[in-house]
Amino acid sequence: MKKLAVLGSTGSIGRQTLDVARAFPEHLRVTALAAGRNRDLLLEQVREFKPRLFCCSDVKDGQDAFRAAGCEEVSLEEMAVAADVDMVVVATSGKAGLKPALAALEQGKPVALANKEVLVMAGALVTEAARRTGASLLPIDSEHSAIWQCLRGEGAESDGCKGVSRLILTASGGAFRDRPLDTLAVATAADALKHPTWLMGEKITIDSATLMNKGLETLEAHWLFGLPLDKIDILIHRQSIIHSMVEFVDGSLKAQLGPPDMRLPIQYALSYPLRWPNRSFGQLDLSGHLNLTFEQVDERRYPCLGLAIEAGRTGGTYPAVLNGADEAAVGLFLQGRVGFGDIAVLVRRVLDAHVGTAKPSLDEVLAADAWARERVRELVEG
Amino acid sequence: MKKLAVLGSTGSIGRQTLDVARAFPEHLRVTALAAGRNRDLLLEQVREFKPRLFCCSDVKDGQDAFRAAGCEEVSLEEMAVAADVDMVVVATSGKAGLKPALAALEQGKPVALANKEVLVMAGALVTEAARRTGASLLPIDSEHSAIWQCLRGEGAESDGCKGVSRLILTASGGAFRDRPLDTLAVATAADALKHPTWLMGEKITIDSATLMNKGLETLEAHWLFGLPLDKIDILIHRQSIIHSMVEFVDGSLKAQLGPPDMRLPIQYALSYPLRWPNRSFGQLDLSGHLNLTFEQVDERRYPCLGLAIEAGRTGGTYPAVLNGADEAAVGLFLQGRVGFGDIAVLVRRVLDAHVGTAKPSLDEVLAADAWARERVRELVEG
Repeated sequence: MKKLAVLGSTGSIGRQTLDVARAFPEHLRVTALAAGRNRDLLLEQVREFKPRLFCCSDVKDGQDAFRAAGCEEVSLEEMAVAADVDMVVVATSGKAGLKPALAALEQGKPVALANKEVLVMAGALVTEAARRTGASLLPIDSEHSAIWQCLRGEGAESDGCKGVSRLILTASGGAFRDRPLDTLAVATAADALKHPTWLMGEKITIDSATLMNKGLETLEAHWLFGLPLDKIDILIHRQSIIHSMVEFVDGSLKAQLGPPDMRLPIQYALSYPLRWPNRSFGQLDLSGHLNLTFEQVDERRYPCLGLAIEAGRTGGTYPAVLNGADEAAVGLFLQGRVGFGDIAVLVRRVLDAHVGTAKPSLDEVLAADAWARERVRELVEG
Repeated sequence: MKKLAVLGSTGSIGRQTLDVARAFPEHLRVTALAAGRNRDLLLEQVREFKPRLFCCSDVKDGQDAFRAAGCEEVSLEEMAVAADVDMVVVATSGKAGLKPALAALEQGKPVALANKEVLVMAGALVTEAARRTGASLLPIDSEHSAIWQCLRGEGAESDGCKGVSRLILTASGGAFRDRPLDTLAVATAADALKHPTWLMGEKITIDSATLMNKGLETLEAHWLFGLPLDKIDILIHRQSIIHSMVEFVDGSLKAQLGPPDMRLPIQYALSYPLRWPNRSFGQLDLSGHLNLTFEQVDERRYPCLGLAIEAGRTGGTYPAVLNGADEAAVGLFLQGRVGFGDIAVLVRRVLDAHVGTAKPSLDEVLAADAWARERVRELVEG
């Protein structure tokens, strides 16, 4: 029986994590739930799963209902290190997951990670904490789960990925993969939110349309699997069935396939090293004619990807600035205050203006993030 | 340094095994070479690799040239258990590999297996010998190598493949995958030898056109990986890039990809558990637009596949009869003495006429094989 803390339980990944917990009551018990804004859904989840601990950061009143359900309020960091938590699922968004993830890893507790920002912003600090205590960092993203599955048994972690020549992250190409280049600048948020294959949160769907998402995943993969950025490539794969691939030094490749259903990589992270049966989640249909295609990335269509790799190469506080600027710019785009093409322009201008710190502390990372968001606001408001 | 005996060194797989040995002189030494017919090429190979042992079963004279090269003549079985042989590559064709493979396994020596007949005819005896001594049985076939790579690290061998829901062998569909069904009966050997993606020996190329090849591979996979036949499926995959797949109980699939170059699975079997670099063998080109398709098998087009599965289900001496009858029928087809459609008809008639033995000894297996070949000859000659 694995006792789970689910941080960000009312978001897309959090809710699907609870689907997995519902499907495997013999293996999983939810002992702690945390959400940012959606107090009502959190309360509903608390009544269903009866965790001992809860955290609802943005709500100051109405905690009585939680207490009536026998639930004790704690901070995210307290939750991450609580004695009756065996594994922390970090499904928060933005930088909220950073401190609790670090706290769990520093205590040697395994962290299942869906929150990209944790590794993008503070990859060095986070992986260093995991290494120090021997705690596992288990990816939940479908792409990283795919790579993790393909590396299984290949001795990759222990020998510095000696047998691996490169990782290939697949990308659907997002909502605008076929839109004429000269009309991208005027694309609306409603257009950009029409993801061709995955149903996800708004921020990540826009990041798919810009391919910033794949840039952030490249930085994540670098930290998770210890490979240099120039050994991580992207291929456009429209069907979102091959979730990523690993190429080995002998020329052999392994790919992981599955339907676009996030509950499968979530389940894998929770069941690892075992595989539990598929209980009514998506299943790939191979009974008809299946067609899988791969294409190179057109860099003119996706300037954000290059910005992400560049920030990753420079390192230090630059990835945090990239991420903060992107989140602020996407927020403004979703409000209709800037155009789609402005996202990359804003991120580039903020990166260009940044004076970085080489080996930043957590505080310096957070300061760089805040600075980047502020800088985007200044640029837009004049 | 691994010391290799290559049995069947002048055939297609044997020659490619020597290509791998040439590419990795720091890892591989060829200490024994054996061939059936091609004495001149064997002598050339002996002069190049300077093995201590040779065997040229079909040549009675001209052994002096081998002795002049410092090479001692032995039988295949003596070669398989020789002290300076660490691994036996069984790349013979037909039943020639059976006794030496068994001899090696009984001594606890690893066997890299390219010769389908060994497992098809005597799967129970061979896997039992390997289990008894703990010797490894390493597949060289591209499909089985793919499955073996996908199962790596999945704990499949030790727990009876508990996490695996099925194996999916991919098939190109052979030379006649698109030929109108009503013209199959009159297809010539020259037509059938035009394999769309792989360059292989004649017998196996005809077996690709009938899909008997995939039937034999299904039986092989059953013995190699310990899964029941109803958990092994076939998909037509025209491009021969995905060499096979494994579906796990959670709904996740892993696939192994590579160019259609047999030197890669051979190298993998020889380097396992390491992966050596790709030294000028084929490499998959992902730089352009790649299209991978999957289709169901049309059973009317490929009656041999059903016959193979049926023989595998019945077990005992039936798979040996299937294999012997197929080899005899394909031989007659290659000589132009029977039509393409007659291959399946002959195999079915011989299987129908067979009275099987449930747990056959090696002698009973060989007798069933001889009986099946003779029976085909009788049926054709009236």
